[in-house]
Amino acid sequence: MTGLRESNRPYPKMIHIRPILFAIGLMLAILSAAMLVPALIDLADNNADWRAFFGAGVFTFFVGGLLVLMTYTEGPVQLGVKDAFLLTTLSWVVLCAFAAMPFIGVGLSYTDAFFEAMSGLTTTGSTVLTKLDVLPRGVLLWRALLNGIGGIGIVVMALLVLPYLRVGGMQLFHTESSDKSEKIVPRALELVSATAGVYFGLIFACAVIYGLLGMTIFDAICHSMATIATGGFSTHDASFGFFNSPSIEWVATFFMIAGAMPFVVMIQTLRGDTHVIWRDEQVRGFLSFIAVLTLVLALWHSASHDVDFPTAVRLAAFNITSIVTTTGFASTDYTTWGTFAFGVFLLITFVGGCSGSTAGAIKIYRLQLAGLLTRRHFIHLISPNRIVTLSYNGKRLSQDVPFSVVAFLAIYMATVGIFTVLLTGMGLDLTTALSSAAQAMGNVGPGLGDIVGPSGNFASLPAAAKWVLAFAMLLGRLELFTVLVLFRPEFWRT
Amino acid sequence: MTGLRESNRPYPKMIHIRPILFAIGLMLAILSAAMLVPALIDLADNNADWRAFFGAGVFTFFVGGLLVLMTYTEGPVQLGVKDAFLLTTLSWVVLCAFAAMPFIGVGLSYTDAFFEAMSGLTTTGSTVLTKLDVLPRGVLLWRALLNGIGGIGIVVMALLVLPYLRVGGMQLFHTESSDKSEKIVPRALELVSATAGVYFGLIFACAVIYGLLGMTIFDAICHSMATIATGGFSTHDASFGFFNSPSIEWVATFFMIAGAMPFVVMIQTLRGDTHVIWRDEQVRGFLSFIAVLTLVLALWHSASHDVDFPTAVRLAAFNITSIVTTTGFASTDYTTWGTFAFGVFLLITFVGGCSGSTAGAIKIYRLQLAGLLTRRHFIHLISPNRIVTLSYNGKRLSQDVPFSVVAFLAIYMATVGIFTVLLTGMGLDLTTALSSAAQAMGNVGPGLGDIVGPSGNFASLPAAAKWVLAFAMLLGRLELFTVLVLFRPEFWRT
Repeated sequence: MTGLRESNRPYPKMIHIRPILFAIGLMLAILSAAMLVPALIDLADNNADWRAFFGAGVFTFFVGGLLVLMTYTEGPVQLGVKDAFLLTTLSWVVLCAFAAMPFIGVGLSYTDAFFEAMSGLTTTGSTVLTKLDVLPRGVLLWRALLNGIGGIGIVVMALLVLPYLRVGGMQLFHTESSDKSEKIVPRALELVSATAGVYFGLIFACAVIYGLLGMTIFDAICHSMATIATGGFSTHDASFGFFNSPSIEWVATFFMIAGAMPFVVMIQTLRGDTHVIWRDEQVRGFLSFIAVLTLVLALWHSASHDVDFPTAVRLAAFNITSIVTTTGFASTDYTTWGTFAFGVFLLITFVGGCSGSTAGAIKIYRLQLAGLLTRRHFIHLISPNRIVTLSYNGKRLSQDVPFSVVAFLAIYMATVGIFTVLLTGMGLDLTTALSSAAQAMGNVGPGLGDIVGPSGNFASLPAAAKWVLAFAMLLGRLELFTVLVLFRPEFWRT
Repeated sequence: MTGLRESNRPYPKMIHIRPILFAIGLMLAILSAAMLVPALIDLADNNADWRAFFGAGVFTFFVGGLLVLMTYTEGPVQLGVKDAFLLTTLSWVVLCAFAAMPFIGVGLSYTDAFFEAMSGLTTTGSTVLTKLDVLPRGVLLWRALLNGIGGIGIVVMALLVLPYLRVGGMQLFHTESSDKSEKIVPRALELVSATAGVYFGLIFACAVIYGLLGMTIFDAICHSMATIATGGFSTHDASFGFFNSPSIEWVATFFMIAGAMPFVVMIQTLRGDTHVIWRDEQVRGFLSFIAVLTLVLALWHSASHDVDFPTAVRLAAFNITSIVTTTGFASTDYTTWGTFAFGVFLLITFVGGCSGSTAGAIKIYRLQLAGLLTRRHFIHLISPNRIVTLSYNGKRLSQDVPFSVVAFLAIYMATVGIFTVLLTGMGLDLTTALSSAAQAMGNVGPGLGDIVGPSGNFASLPAAAKWVLAFAMLLGRLELFTVLVLFRPEFWRT
């Protein structure tokens, strides 16, 4: 017989549908408020699109308010694991559906609107919009706001929800541990407000510096949100190539890295514990990875393309940082750098930033843990009964972390493979299919090739491919298991 | 602190270098005898190449004999785990180095000769030789013999050595278990002779039927070895397209499947326990996978290319079976079937046949176990303390199997990724680099694209790429860990 046998205990019941809908209602109310901002700017610009934003805002507020009123319950509610899974996935999908409405109002098809909204809120940054430079400012601001809202949503989710759900080894980052050395006050609300403080502080600082270096105020605000959220939506078709400014590129490189750093570590650093940031294994791995890869690619590019070394360093640093942090800005079309650049940029599409940041993809700590686990596995192959204990950042790994991490890696790869085949079935060539599946899963933004590459645009893809990619963005953003678990019959058993 | 801490016990010593060299000496002596066969056929054909084979045979016999004489020890020797790892990898590399010699003798560069020998002995089937149809019969026979020798070597290794080394979950197939229901007499020699009986019986049957269906005796013998070994070396540039015979293609499809079936199950079946083959989960999964995929691709191909359905079924069955069994014969250039075929054929390059067969790649049982483990993981996410026991083919999984399997999958994918980047660095385009890395790791044969596709040839690749691919073939053939463990410093510590 092959299969699995379970003990007879019942599965945990799912009884809290009311608080789930209540929470989603609240989020919709916040989203509706955000829709007023582009409405106001379009109104100021005398652009009729303000009605699309205003109308969507009113409708979203109505639905959200209705949900809140209908599901409000006295007293505290405790959400179970299943509730948390359902809330996380459902809220993301519902918010994207409503966030798409203004795009429909300005003329996009529902497919394109949903794709753009999902790309924005998951901070992916793939776009179906063309001629960004001449689009009304309302639409451009809405895209930037989706990046901005998505970014803070992801960090809060990564700090509070995912460790609790134990997806893909995230249990490692349980901040409410009994560990006395933690400097962070463990209460959730304080953590959220500290995170929001750092997040909006970074956006503010980034916007100010962008402005000082010559961006318009509008561009500075839009790009700073897309930078810190590692989103990648730009207000120009040429992305950062438009500004043609080395100093702006270096500043963007710095702030993309900031957005992909663990926010808990940044909070600790700002509270005076400055050596935490240099002691953190994930930060060290992340920064070294970017530094080494930048050097390699810069040497390669300057040797093979007659570019002076400092320029090559800047180009490599910006574009590698953009992909590794899963931002997706481009300062040049690196796919013209030859086959090696294709290979490197495909591979780093899988890497991602640090956990507890706005970055997506596999993430540094999983790769570091995979390295440790591989070493232990080899030791066990040579010397089977040897006792080997693993620790990461000073914490002993709990028993379920190794399998969680390695299973995440295997399922991540398998999912990219399956999406690739689906996309080839829709007529995409292999490079386009593979790179767009990988970038969507990693919430990166650009893929490779003429269509989805850094100079391309997702508009011309078939509608079915856009839905597949939107689903891949959701999967990747919610760390796979949060979504996939809903497809298991066991989830719905009580 | 991040890292691993080990207990202080010393590592097992490696003290048995003499029996390792003795075993390699014996294998070289057998290989040298095999070299006389192409020497004789070239001599009969009045082709001066016979000297190359004869000379290489004499030299190989000399070195092998010397090793045997120098390292012969009285009494039984017990090989430890480390000895077995070293013996397995070293014997494969040394045999390839000697098997390459006749190719040098007939004019190939050392790189090409080693590539061709590695491709032959690992039953990969990628070739750097062109104009196969006009090559002397000695060279063609030598290639077929390398497939044939490699095939039996792999099966014996998979039955006796790899379960003992516990690589990638192979411990599941430990035939010397205390399980009383096993019908197989557990003694190694008897198992080897039964395996050899089935192996050569299949080659004989295959050759006879090929001959009856119109192949020349020489073609029938060469192709039957390449079929059962799931090797894929042909004597014609057009591979099975040359014969242009539907019946030959169906026979080849049947025998490729036979070569990729678990030999233990076939032995049990031949001994009268016929329902074993239908009860075996791996066999069922393997056959269903091929059947379903054939149907899907045949429907697609007949719908999109105006091919009648029976022809589409035959084409799909042959070429899918060829890739899934990691044989690598081609009956047509399926890469002209459109983008979907690209996606499908890339994905199935990773699948592979059953364990304990001549097939390479990931293998069916690992994918089935990964499915089971994923299900268990999801149940644990929903209901953390639930007790779930896993079994495969009626056996409870031992504690170390899950991690071994999932780690194998993750490292397999990562290795393909790294090889892909290395190959793009050597100037290969992404499709060529990725597909040739994947096919080499899976010991498949053809990749995708003009150069390494089913109508292409590896000759034009840069020398460095050939060495990378040869290393990838070795890695894949020896199930990754057997080779990689030698690169760990812990292996060399005593």
